[in-house]
Amino acid sequence: MTHPIINDLEKRYTTKRYTTQRIPQDDLDVIYEAMRLSPSSINSQPWKFIVIESDEAKERMHSTFENKFQFNQPHIKTASHVILFAYNPKYKRDDYAQVIDADTKNGRTQSENREQAFGAFAFVDMNTDEQGNNAMWTKAQTYIALGNTMHAAARLGIDSTPMEGVDAQLIGEVFEHELDGYICDVALVLGYHDDTEDYNAKLPKSRLAKEQVIQVL
Amino acid sequence: MTHPIINDLEKRYTTKRYTTQRIPQDDLDVIYEAMRLSPSSINSQPWKFIVIESDEAKERMHSTFENKFQFNQPHIKTASHVILFAYNPKYKRDDYAQVIDADTKNGRTQSENREQAFGAFAFVDMNTDEQGNNAMWTKAQTYIALGNTMHAAARLGIDSTPMEGVDAQLIGEVFEHELDGYICDVALVLGYHDDTEDYNAKLPKSRLAKEQVIQVL
Repeated sequence: MTHPIINDLEKRYTTKRYTTQRIPQDDLDVIYEAMRLSPSSINSQPWKFIVIESDEAKERMHSTFENKFQFNQPHIKTASHVILFAYNPKYKRDDYAQVIDADTKNGRTQSENREQAFGAFAFVDMNTDEQGNNAMWTKAQTYIALGNTMHAAARLGIDSTPMEGVDAQLIGEVFEHELDGYICDVALVLGYHDDTEDYNAKLPKSRLAKEQVIQVL
Repeated sequence: MTHPIINDLEKRYTTKRYTTQRIPQDDLDVIYEAMRLSPSSINSQPWKFIVIESDEAKERMHSTFENKFQFNQPHIKTASHVILFAYNPKYKRDDYAQVIDADTKNGRTQSENREQAFGAFAFVDMNTDEQGNNAMWTKAQTYIALGNTMHAAARLGIDSTPMEGVDAQLIGEVFEHELDGYICDVALVLGYHDDTEDYNAKLPKSRLAKEQVIQVL
């Protein structure tokens, strides 16, 4: 099948070695805006995207691989950028109020309908346990943003490495201030692969056959 | 900001009323292939995509709204297609063996390295509880596919409605055979919005401000 969408997704793969080439600011701006525009249930946006760009931030991120997942550590200082995808494990009515306030500001919701707009919050209640934890739900939303961002990067010809191989606990300590209670257990490296060193660039793409994952009824 | 990626994502929104216009088969084929090419942790692909296309399948899906979320019911018979995004709540070594077998077949993994390829399964173990449940992890992967698919649909000019407002229990009963133990608690409607009836088509897109969700360090 030949189609620009398929070309982009066929080309996309998990880069294993990066060059030090930097992503142009114009492309970064598109990536950031694509992340921000990601869809989420009831438009909750229960996420924070923390971009590791400066040498100092990279040093901090690098240090979080002290105990495990060292195979991912080289990307941090070599690749152009790393984005921490963090979710709110206890999404509350106050958090949703920020969304509704944005809606009111841009004319999507009339201010007299503010209370009514909270009706959608029932979806949060359905996914919240007695301790106020709804991490399974907010984490899932954040993976929509991850899927959306990887697609956007592929369109821009930017290579990427999604990493669950990160130390959520150490990231929580080192970036405690920035995370402010959010949890990061997945990050996305962005940059350009090293043609000679990246063994994965040359391997064929592998997916289960269509018959194994898609049924048309 | 003007960029084709941003245009696509700005245009994308959750459609609330559909016409009966059908999606051309060529576009459906791109959507299916985009879903299949979705990235996932360790390339686990712990998902099934069940496409509701025929009148008979739509009748079955329609019946799952008997108890709740009736506001989403009209889409089922009106819109072109509905895709059930289902995840495996107990992803096992046997499931990953299918991926490794595909890798071996296409030359990605040499057959003498088969055992070594299971090393990545450590990520599944890390996310599995004592009862063998890893639904939080597999569900999150499935939301990557959801984000990727919504992006692909937007590029094709196809409207969509992601729905967590589905009755996972009734879907589990009505599609028990097709799901085969997988869980569907999110579905994606695809089709074309009704210009006169879809109030959401005219409302401004709303997202939190960049400063609220993105920090560059």
